[in-house]
Amino acid sequence: MKFTINRNSFIRSFNDVSRAIPAKTTIPILTGIKLDLTNDGLLLTGSNSDISIETFMPVSDEELNLQIESVGSVVLTARFFGEVVKRLPEDEFTLEVRDNYQTRLTSGKSEFTVVGIDANDFPRLPEVEDQSELKIGADILRDLINQTVLAVSDQETRPILTGVNFTIDGNGLLAVATDSHRLSQRRLDLPDITSTYRMVIPGKSLQELSRMLADQSGDIALRISENQVLFSFGATKFYSRLLEGNYPDTARLIPTEHNVQLQLNASTFLAAIERAALLSHASRANVVRLVLTPADNSAILSGTSPDVGNVEEALTITALTGDELDISFNPDYMKDALRAFGPAEISLNFTTNLRPFTLVPTADGEHFVQLITPVRTFN
Amino acid sequence: MKFTINRNSFIRSFNDVSRAIPAKTTIPILTGIKLDLTNDGLLLTGSNSDISIETFMPVSDEELNLQIESVGSVVLTARFFGEVVKRLPEDEFTLEVRDNYQTRLTSGKSEFTVVGIDANDFPRLPEVEDQSELKIGADILRDLINQTVLAVSDQETRPILTGVNFTIDGNGLLAVATDSHRLSQRRLDLPDITSTYRMVIPGKSLQELSRMLADQSGDIALRISENQVLFSFGATKFYSRLLEGNYPDTARLIPTEHNVQLQLNASTFLAAIERAALLSHASRANVVRLVLTPADNSAILSGTSPDVGNVEEALTITALTGDELDISFNPDYMKDALRAFGPAEISLNFTTNLRPFTLVPTADGEHFVQLITPVRTFN
Repeated sequence: MKFTINRNSFIRSFNDVSRAIPAKTTIPILTGIKLDLTNDGLLLTGSNSDISIETFMPVSDEELNLQIESVGSVVLTARFFGEVVKRLPEDEFTLEVRDNYQTRLTSGKSEFTVVGIDANDFPRLPEVEDQSELKIGADILRDLINQTVLAVSDQETRPILTGVNFTIDGNGLLAVATDSHRLSQRRLDLPDITSTYRMVIPGKSLQELSRMLADQSGDIALRISENQVLFSFGATKFYSRLLEGNYPDTARLIPTEHNVQLQLNASTFLAAIERAALLSHASRANVVRLVLTPADNSAILSGTSPDVGNVEEALTITALTGDELDISFNPDYMKDALRAFGPAEISLNFTTNLRPFTLVPTADGEHFVQLITPVRTFN
Repeated sequence: MKFTINRNSFIRSFNDVSRAIPAKTTIPILTGIKLDLTNDGLLLTGSNSDISIETFMPVSDEELNLQIESVGSVVLTARFFGEVVKRLPEDEFTLEVRDNYQTRLTSGKSEFTVVGIDANDFPRLPEVEDQSELKIGADILRDLINQTVLAVSDQETRPILTGVNFTIDGNGLLAVATDSHRLSQRRLDLPDITSTYRMVIPGKSLQELSRMLADQSGDIALRISENQVLFSFGATKFYSRLLEGNYPDTARLIPTEHNVQLQLNASTFLAAIERAALLSHASRANVVRLVLTPADNSAILSGTSPDVGNVEEALTITALTGDELDISFNPDYMKDALRAFGPAEISLNFTTNLRPFTLVPTADGEHFVQLITPVRTFN
């Protein structure tokens, strides 16, 4: 195996694949990156137990300036190999696998020899059958991920809650996440869906995928098998395992009625929550309090720490209707929820100060809803 | 005490003073920032056991928009107070000290009350007598600090070596630092010095000072007392304690003759050292090897790790004269040394592979010299 390639183009592909490669693992070969060189081009593969990423650099891509002398495969320790390639002196470098997988990297007058491993020892990627394929715009998928993944659980006590639950059927796509204190649900209209798919994708996989989608445009192709999902875009394939088990029925959790409704701008509310959280974070309880008085059109947010002090702020609101309410909640859940709305006008719908309340965009309450459980206090 | 001030201007001064304020300390009041308001303006003070910083915001500065209602003093927990001010909603804020040093901060519709402390409990700043004052350009002082402080010791076994030794006399200013493995010496021509000063300033103080000088121009005024040095610039005063004890005589350590001289560009050499260090860092010894063969005009740098591999590079050099040499050294010392030269042409002067060697700018060997002790190996 021997080839010469443009260094910066190689580094870009290397960085994509590296997202799947763990720094530490109980399976040492997974700290490696696999290089497969055929006459068509160079395939890079990285994997951990949850995610696998493949990216292909075709010989036809002129930017790569890929010159193939002989084909073959090798696995190299990813982190170290990456450091070396990033520091090589010239625009191009040559990689040659020699006896015993000793791999020589040359660039200008610099010559590295690093230890390689037989590529046959690298685990095989999951197979996702070439069945029906779904397409979603990259920016739509990225938003959908970011708006739901915030509510997944980081506790392994109920593993199924560490994922986002996807249901795809004639009604479109429904994505729900909950850690049992809060919930986020996003609905997407998709045309022409005839089959039904259900899958729970690990939150960590989705976070990595979302980062990779940041500079993608166009459509992402989705293929689903029993225990794997494959997202394809450009020259990259992103595999994630699926979580096993039944996701709880969340539809019944979302209240359909309310007694109090507060409308305001999500980003100005976020700034006020961040101020109040300065005090709640200095306190053991980490709770802020919202007192709503519709007769006075008044919404007062406050936070207190016995040791440090207190803060009180009259919120700038758009509308307030219904009953009086005195409710307390975790400001960190509220911050996460508000960030997902950006600068939009939102409506908060409350029933009582003991029951979960919802947040929806004022302009469209159908496609995106978040739910937060209040904290019971003795004010 | 009550005043209103422009928030961003206040934050800038607050950030300067914060550099001296420790996050944790055995003297709790030192985690506070002191505010002293007189009819002339607002003085902020922060201090740890080594450094104290004062900055003054005069009522005459129109940008501050400082409106004084009543004078007084208070100490507030610096980190929390800073977080609050940074998150206040409006361009200005009002601070009022009330009963029991309860301090109220208002900005727009947001109102914080935080616990304050009696300013009389804050330690007094050291007094540096108004004797003769020395002036040095801010950028010259910053370079001088950065070029020497790299060689101070981080070990407390010989505390005096954690500082930079300054000697100011008729010959100008001489600054020397050494951790006993390497040494850096910078000389500055200063006109009209009639007295002699000697002081050892802690490296950590100098690092903070250097950061503060990053956006300063013009002259820095230096005043020295028995156990303190005061740097004044703009509205800011920076005090550092001095280290006690005698600094070792370093003049005799610097060799005056050499048998081998290598000239090359500091930044291309640095890149090669960084590549070689990738391997040496993967090895327990952390040593790189330089083989010089003047007859062939050849300088070969190499690094080896038994587990990972090796690297070898023919350096691009300007000139090489003298005897053959095979020498090994710590690449991290070399990296620090080379960074201090920027992109300059430098000369490395060697005697034998067991004796310290020097690095100087090829254009001026008088004002800046660094010394590195080689590592004895069994190549």
